[in-house]
Amino acid sequence: MSDCLKSTIDEIKPVSKESIAKAYERLDSLTKPKRSLGYLEELAARYVAIRGEIRPIFRGKKVFVFAGDHKVVEEGVSAYPADVTGLMVMNFIHGGAAINVLARCAGAEVEIIDIGMAKDPGNLKGLLRLNVKRSADNIAKGPAMTIYEAKKAVSVGIERLNFAANTGVTLVATGEMGIGNTTPAAALYAAYLGLPVSELVGPGTGLDVQGIAKKTKIIEKALEVNRSRCTGPIETLAALGGLEIAGICGLCLGAAARRIPVVVDGYISTAGALVAMTICPAAKDYMFFSHMSAEPGHKKFFETENLRPVLDLGMRLGEGTGAVMAMQIIQDAVAIYNEMATFADVGITPGA
Amino acid sequence: MSDCLKSTIDEIKPVSKESIAKAYERLDSLTKPKRSLGYLEELAARYVAIRGEIRPIFRGKKVFVFAGDHKVVEEGVSAYPADVTGLMVMNFIHGGAAINVLARCAGAEVEIIDIGMAKDPGNLKGLLRLNVKRSADNIAKGPAMTIYEAKKAVSVGIERLNFAANTGVTLVATGEMGIGNTTPAAALYAAYLGLPVSELVGPGTGLDVQGIAKKTKIIEKALEVNRSRCTGPIETLAALGGLEIAGICGLCLGAAARRIPVVVDGYISTAGALVAMTICPAAKDYMFFSHMSAEPGHKKFFETENLRPVLDLGMRLGEGTGAVMAMQIIQDAVAIYNEMATFADVGITPGA
Repeated sequence: MSDCLKSTIDEIKPVSKESIAKAYERLDSLTKPKRSLGYLEELAARYVAIRGEIRPIFRGKKVFVFAGDHKVVEEGVSAYPADVTGLMVMNFIHGGAAINVLARCAGAEVEIIDIGMAKDPGNLKGLLRLNVKRSADNIAKGPAMTIYEAKKAVSVGIERLNFAANTGVTLVATGEMGIGNTTPAAALYAAYLGLPVSELVGPGTGLDVQGIAKKTKIIEKALEVNRSRCTGPIETLAALGGLEIAGICGLCLGAAARRIPVVVDGYISTAGALVAMTICPAAKDYMFFSHMSAEPGHKKFFETENLRPVLDLGMRLGEGTGAVMAMQIIQDAVAIYNEMATFADVGITPGA
Repeated sequence: MSDCLKSTIDEIKPVSKESIAKAYERLDSLTKPKRSLGYLEELAARYVAIRGEIRPIFRGKKVFVFAGDHKVVEEGVSAYPADVTGLMVMNFIHGGAAINVLARCAGAEVEIIDIGMAKDPGNLKGLLRLNVKRSADNIAKGPAMTIYEAKKAVSVGIERLNFAANTGVTLVATGEMGIGNTTPAAALYAAYLGLPVSELVGPGTGLDVQGIAKKTKIIEKALEVNRSRCTGPIETLAALGGLEIAGICGLCLGAAARRIPVVVDGYISTAGALVAMTICPAAKDYMFFSHMSAEPGHKKFFETENLRPVLDLGMRLGEGTGAVMAMQIIQDAVAIYNEMATFADVGITPGA
């Protein structure tokens, strides 16, 4: 398993500044005032540079929804009971969830993966059974998983990416389902960014002020209990994370290795992306952060890392919902690059 | 002409709070934590309330690009020469401009209207010749147009909306092309919002600091020269506006009268929408502000009116580009409303 991780990391190269500059050359030749499409041009330039194609084509789009549970819910950190993870996975399979609807709008395929669900859902059409462990353990009492399990879950993400890449997918998005997973996500942000837990904790799917205070204490306890285990990125992931977060980390690493742009969803997915970019900083070049979650800690991440989300709609649902919406904007950006006429085409002298 | 305007205004009724509350009832029954889709739910609720359909269907989408010139460019307020308006209109007709590309992405039809171009473009397939006046006059020296001309240009917008509504269009967007038109737009914001010109003026398509200072002086002069004429919303539009801005105002009024949601583009389009909502405050209920323009005065508008844009991508191109992109997000929002499963469907007890 660790061979898969190592060989993937070895494949990741930074996106060259020259390729980005070359993409901007074309963007600046198009019939619009220079850089007047703002961030849309940045999205286009980076996408083009990543893909290395003269006119990039979207051959397939896919969102990966990693499902995993968290025994830390027994501490009372979530507004929903743990069995909602399983019920929502059934909802995904039947096509009735927000991610199904928004993925249809974006023309993206949805892949559902049991990577760490508490209960075996059984054989179901439309569900990939790649369970590494039946729920992450209670991080307030010990590590979420072993290092071996963390690496195995990362490898699941890498392997799903590789399978998608081999079948022609050229744009991927991260998604997840896991009752209680804002708790491990906040713990990971605190550990990786060195920020106080109180700045990173929010209501999740619907806690009140008291609930948030309690959750803050639980996360502080988790950091304390696991302090000696957090010796490196993978070790910290194993101690404080979750199986679905590890899967997302793997998907991000795999995408960077295969030069496929990866659209990162909200608060939970970004924790997985943060693990990936801590393991391998060049992986960041391949990530498109889709939206600013309403979960307050997400803003801290963007500030600390000096990154910018595509959308800011006050969403806090997860599943990959923000990511598939941002896919549409990225596709708009690339269409601009591919399809607009140049100044030379129409006989205008470019202005400032 | 003024009969058309009056009868349109008479048709505009506020969107009922009850219809919005009813739309939220359904949104709250869907399989997601309550209001976890944030602003997307607000877009859906208002769209549904406007249309008054149980399951709203997008039967047709259209963006209207009103083209008009401005003799104030002779004062040196633009980075581009005036004849670029005509060249860009040709580009629209040939499908090579940003608006053509992004409208294709959004599945929206593009309608190009000569409402005030300086030069007669002649008979061209794909161009509607509804010219009211060959360029707005220099507002630094006198009124942009007569009140009769302003009303006539507003009526062109109303009539184009009515034609679209009669052919089954259910979502419209505003767009424009007119070299120099950030100058009349800034003048209108200053007049309607009572803000100092210096807070509303920006680089437009590419002025430097000196150019912006000069433009500020020209706009202050325009306000001074036309002060006695600005006695009411239409009078102010006639004194300081432009033909394309008047057309957009008409489109917004017509949309509200026909209960069709209208997606307002950036800095120039919003000036037209501002005229419409000053004439008839209830028209605001039908407007969706698509994006925050990089033109600094746009932010002032949102702050003053306590409104929120859908997107914030640092765009400053106009044409309707931000509006058609926001159409995709609105369509996502309505798909959520129409297509998601309810808690009852999947056997989950709703949480907080």
